[in-house]
Amino acid sequence: MEPPSDDDEPEHNNGFLNRVARYNPQHAWRTWLIGRPLPTAAAPHQTLSKAVGLAVFGADALSSIAYAPQETLVILAAAGTQAFGYAFPISLVITVLLAIVTISYQQTIHAYPSGGGAYTVVKENLGEPAALVAGAALLTDYILLAAVAISSGVAQIVSAFPDLFPYRVWISVGLLVLIAVANLRGVKESGNTFAAPTYFFLAMTVLAVGAGFVRYLSGTLGMVIDPPPIETLHAEPLTLFLLLRAFSNGTTALTGVECISNGVKSFKEPRAHNAALTMVWMSTLLGVLFLGIVYLLGVIGAVPSESETVISQLARTVFGNRGLLYLGTMIATTTILILATNTAFAGFPTLSAIIAEDGYMPRQLAYRGSRLVFSRGIASLTAIAAFLIVIFNASVTALIPLWAVGVFLSFTLSQAGMARHWWNNRLLADKTIVEKEATRLYDPGWRWKLAINGLGSVTTAIVTLIFAITKFADGAWIIVLLLPTVVISFFAVHRHYVYLAQDLSLEHYGQPPPAKRHRVIMPVSAIHHGTLEALDYALSLSLDVTAVHISMDAVQTEKLQQKWNGWGKGVRLVVIESPYRTFLEPFLEYVNELCAILQPNERLTIVVPQFIPKLWWHNLLHTQTAFWLRFVLLNKKGIVITEVPYQVR
Amino acid sequence: MEPPSDDDEPEHNNGFLNRVARYNPQHAWRTWLIGRPLPTAAAPHQTLSKAVGLAVFGADALSSIAYAPQETLVILAAAGTQAFGYAFPISLVITVLLAIVTISYQQTIHAYPSGGGAYTVVKENLGEPAALVAGAALLTDYILLAAVAISSGVAQIVSAFPDLFPYRVWISVGLLVLIAVANLRGVKESGNTFAAPTYFFLAMTVLAVGAGFVRYLSGTLGMVIDPPPIETLHAEPLTLFLLLRAFSNGTTALTGVECISNGVKSFKEPRAHNAALTMVWMSTLLGVLFLGIVYLLGVIGAVPSESETVISQLARTVFGNRGLLYLGTMIATTTILILATNTAFAGFPTLSAIIAEDGYMPRQLAYRGSRLVFSRGIASLTAIAAFLIVIFNASVTALIPLWAVGVFLSFTLSQAGMARHWWNNRLLADKTIVEKEATRLYDPGWRWKLAINGLGSVTTAIVTLIFAITKFADGAWIIVLLLPTVVISFFAVHRHYVYLAQDLSLEHYGQPPPAKRHRVIMPVSAIHHGTLEALDYALSLSLDVTAVHISMDAVQTEKLQQKWNGWGKGVRLVVIESPYRTFLEPFLEYVNELCAILQPNERLTIVVPQFIPKLWWHNLLHTQTAFWLRFVLLNKKGIVITEVPYQVR
Repeated sequence: MEPPSDDDEPEHNNGFLNRVARYNPQHAWRTWLIGRPLPTAAAPHQTLSKAVGLAVFGADALSSIAYAPQETLVILAAAGTQAFGYAFPISLVITVLLAIVTISYQQTIHAYPSGGGAYTVVKENLGEPAALVAGAALLTDYILLAAVAISSGVAQIVSAFPDLFPYRVWISVGLLVLIAVANLRGVKESGNTFAAPTYFFLAMTVLAVGAGFVRYLSGTLGMVIDPPPIETLHAEPLTLFLLLRAFSNGTTALTGVECISNGVKSFKEPRAHNAALTMVWMSTLLGVLFLGIVYLLGVIGAVPSESETVISQLARTVFGNRGLLYLGTMIATTTILILATNTAFAGFPTLSAIIAEDGYMPRQLAYRGSRLVFSRGIASLTAIAAFLIVIFNASVTALIPLWAVGVFLSFTLSQAGMARHWWNNRLLADKTIVEKEATRLYDPGWRWKLAINGLGSVTTAIVTLIFAITKFADGAWIIVLLLPTVVISFFAVHRHYVYLAQDLSLEHYGQPPPAKRHRVIMPVSAIHHGTLEALDYALSLSLDVTAVHISMDAVQTEKLQQKWNGWGKGVRLVVIESPYRTFLEPFLEYVNELCAILQPNERLTIVVPQFIPKLWWHNLLHTQTAFWLRFVLLNKKGIVITEVPYQVR
Repeated sequence: MEPPSDDDEPEHNNGFLNRVARYNPQHAWRTWLIGRPLPTAAAPHQTLSKAVGLAVFGADALSSIAYAPQETLVILAAAGTQAFGYAFPISLVITVLLAIVTISYQQTIHAYPSGGGAYTVVKENLGEPAALVAGAALLTDYILLAAVAISSGVAQIVSAFPDLFPYRVWISVGLLVLIAVANLRGVKESGNTFAAPTYFFLAMTVLAVGAGFVRYLSGTLGMVIDPPPIETLHAEPLTLFLLLRAFSNGTTALTGVECISNGVKSFKEPRAHNAALTMVWMSTLLGVLFLGIVYLLGVIGAVPSESETVISQLARTVFGNRGLLYLGTMIATTTILILATNTAFAGFPTLSAIIAEDGYMPRQLAYRGSRLVFSRGIASLTAIAAFLIVIFNASVTALIPLWAVGVFLSFTLSQAGMARHWWNNRLLADKTIVEKEATRLYDPGWRWKLAINGLGSVTTAIVTLIFAITKFADGAWIIVLLLPTVVISFFAVHRHYVYLAQDLSLEHYGQPPPAKRHRVIMPVSAIHHGTLEALDYALSLSLDVTAVHISMDAVQTEKLQQKWNGWGKGVRLVVIESPYRTFLEPFLEYVNELCAILQPNERLTIVVPQFIPKLWWHNLLHTQTAFWLRFVLLNKKGIVITEVPYQVR
């Protein structure tokens, strides 16, 4: 056969015909929504300065000051407003935890200059099973990050515009879908997108906290005017357990701090140095602002509420009214929360593509879509996050208990991996090993570094436990059950791929004996154009053709037999009476009997005439026999199904 | 080819091989639910005495006294309780209407002794379009009958057991599904099933009404103790429009009176005489009980309410307490309402099968299921009725406005058909015409009969109009819009079948020229067991085989090309680079180019290797390329698709 076109000469390469498809992607609703397909080409790589890097990788972490203080207070509120006094001491402990995590991750940045995501670090140092646990934890994190950040962003919006409160779930889902579409188009994590909103947020927050302290010290800072009512219905006693629960909620301030360690590669050289320095800045800003906000909230007597966020209460108290500065603060907070959601959209599809490449998730997740992004990952993230938002009514307080278990579990595993890294390093005393990730040198200070990462790991493990236990009843149980399920399904998927690869391998493939005989069966319900076309085709395959008619009505069958004498081209017609008026079972019975006596070197093909109506809904007017036949017969070994379509004009 | 089994000799008949499928229907959840399949055999036909016939065909009509009085009062309640005084005069008008309809239908029974359903009568006398309008009206009626009767039955249950009120929607849907399952099993409309409950209901109702009048005349009948609160929120003035609305609601008492005329065939001989007499009895009972109940309701000051039916209020007032007689009345009322639902389950599937036979509804509706009933019709009825019950919250008051338009429209058309029947009859003055339905004799009294049916038709037409106008805003608009839509879709379906029959007809069929060349294309993504099996098959079809690889990754393609040298059996491999990483578009582009240069006597077959994984969920782990390919290519003329399945062990 000639190549079907000859106007451009196909390239002959090793005896194969090579050509490039010339089709132009069609305009369609897809194109309008997510843009025209992009040809495969490496995305341009941009390196970031420290200031821009802080914006790109810090938005997630910094945005957590929008919800972490509120979620700490929400728990304390159950023990009455006098318990709010414990918020500041709890924040101090959280800030210490932040310092430990930051110092630990400094070492990850230096050890993995090409990007030290938890999955990579754990896989390299603790092996695949532990890495899959970290991977599962990270995937749930990303999902919850998207759900929480959007919900918190919308909570800021409805604080400023209380009339929107009843629509918060649909506003949240709408925003989520918007962000998903933007990511399907392929949002570049360019500095410009991130720098302006992040620094605007930092400026507004520093201004609010600064002005708050100035007014506090000058004695002009009053209480919140007209605070929302406290929603806790049944007061609890102030127990250690309650304080630990409040602490657990506050630790959500740490979510996102590890982001910089994933993105070291994007920094300007010396990249490890710059990334490490940026992380220190970011953590310092985060810690100071977090402490400042919690302190001021105590001073003004802010009340945690679903209808007005504490950030809104702080801003309108500090700035004296709902004026321009207030609105600016709320806009900045909403914007950074939505940017934080984007971190989830960057992280989830990439991580699932990596896990899919390793064969633990469906392969499709590793295929890039028409815009070069992992579209299926983006779609999955959107669907699950939207589901959570709807189920939990866009309530940050309801979503938080599901979140931080995964975050701290991945911190723990990542730091444990680093500790193991240093432990292994001691063996390198005299040699230099070149590995794929980096050139490994013996580090004489490995004992210190082991100690630091060990401390980080143990601390975060303790926080994981505290979180899992204190928030268990509130929803953490979902994650405690979900994580093992996800890990088990990773292994189930992997088993299938491994098994399939063995099964398909050509290593022990023996050529089958040449086929001697080709039997063809064709079901016939009536004689018309379609049947005759299929019969022609069947006769072109083999002379051994049998037409099979399943008879449900003696009169119709009689007519068919008479017609067959004239039109049947001499092909044998077998009539099977179906006493229960079903088509499938008698036909299958016949096929099965035939299969049982089939020789190994005989082929059996079933030729099915199939109507293709002009309008799709016309399909509802026909019994879809061919569909069911295919469905059932595809599972039978050694049968080939051929559909001869007959297009109704 | 030999018949696959030789242990029982197939019957040779006109040179065809005939056999009976011997498979035994399998045990499955279906079997457990609806019983083992029944072989095709005529259902035994039972003839009914007048007393049993009254029970079988009267249950539907008689059950309407359970809701018609209540629905009349509900409208009057809007004008305040003093308006209840109009209920009795309205009932008198309705009783007159009942008499007119009964007399009209007497003539239908005598003229159509083999069953005079509206569809049949209208089709024969007014033509197919009018019959389709009647058919559409009847189908919506049956659906609403099922929804209303079940909802009313459950309203009786929750009147007796008020704790069940919040669950009424689910109880209704549950009962509906139970009745559907019973009908899927194939309920025989045997006298036994119907006689006992119907006569029990009649006995209890006569007892309640009788005892009520005895106590009323003896002055011991008090008012309802602790009646439910009146639910009407905004009081309306007492206008003629309001009275007409109340009248419209009351006319639901007439629903079902035509049933006997459909079932004349089932009566003992002289069947027309017996059926006509039964109908008179039934209408008399219905009229008397309806009037009696409405009168007594006025005396005891019953209040229409969703939480307690007026029947319940009447029974507990007449019998003095919620004792055994009260419970008996409620059980009887519930039971007959559920029997009335069964009328819908008998009527809807049969009527849709008749319309489907005529080619105006999907053919599948005319196929009998494994239990010899029209399973698809039963399933459709159940689904739509359940949808209505859920949407309208199982409220009879909300459902009623949708109902009676269709009922009276079919009355009107049926009576108009009868009038036309007598008008045509005048031409028979001297001859006797034998038609399929009956031997037609000239009837010298045709003028009188024409007048009676004409009066029936005009009266019911007026009621239809009153109903459509007064209940338009309450929901009748749904039906006013739905009926034309249904009729239009009848014609659309018919057009498709007619068109298809012409297209498939062999009348002008010319034998196509014999095929000379058979080209085969096979998409190849990787080389493994499955590919090689498909390649073997492709080579058995033709020597002109081209393998097509869509390249998305240069490295993989390079590997494939090398492997192809060893395993490709000398088949040409065309490599098409896909710049946008899609499979479908480049492959289709290639197929289209090939199709464009295909000669009329050339065939093109596409052989698609297809994975069949062992577990269904494994399908999620593979891109379903074959599925999409089939989906797109089936619409292309002249291409045959062959799937060579490869079952993963």
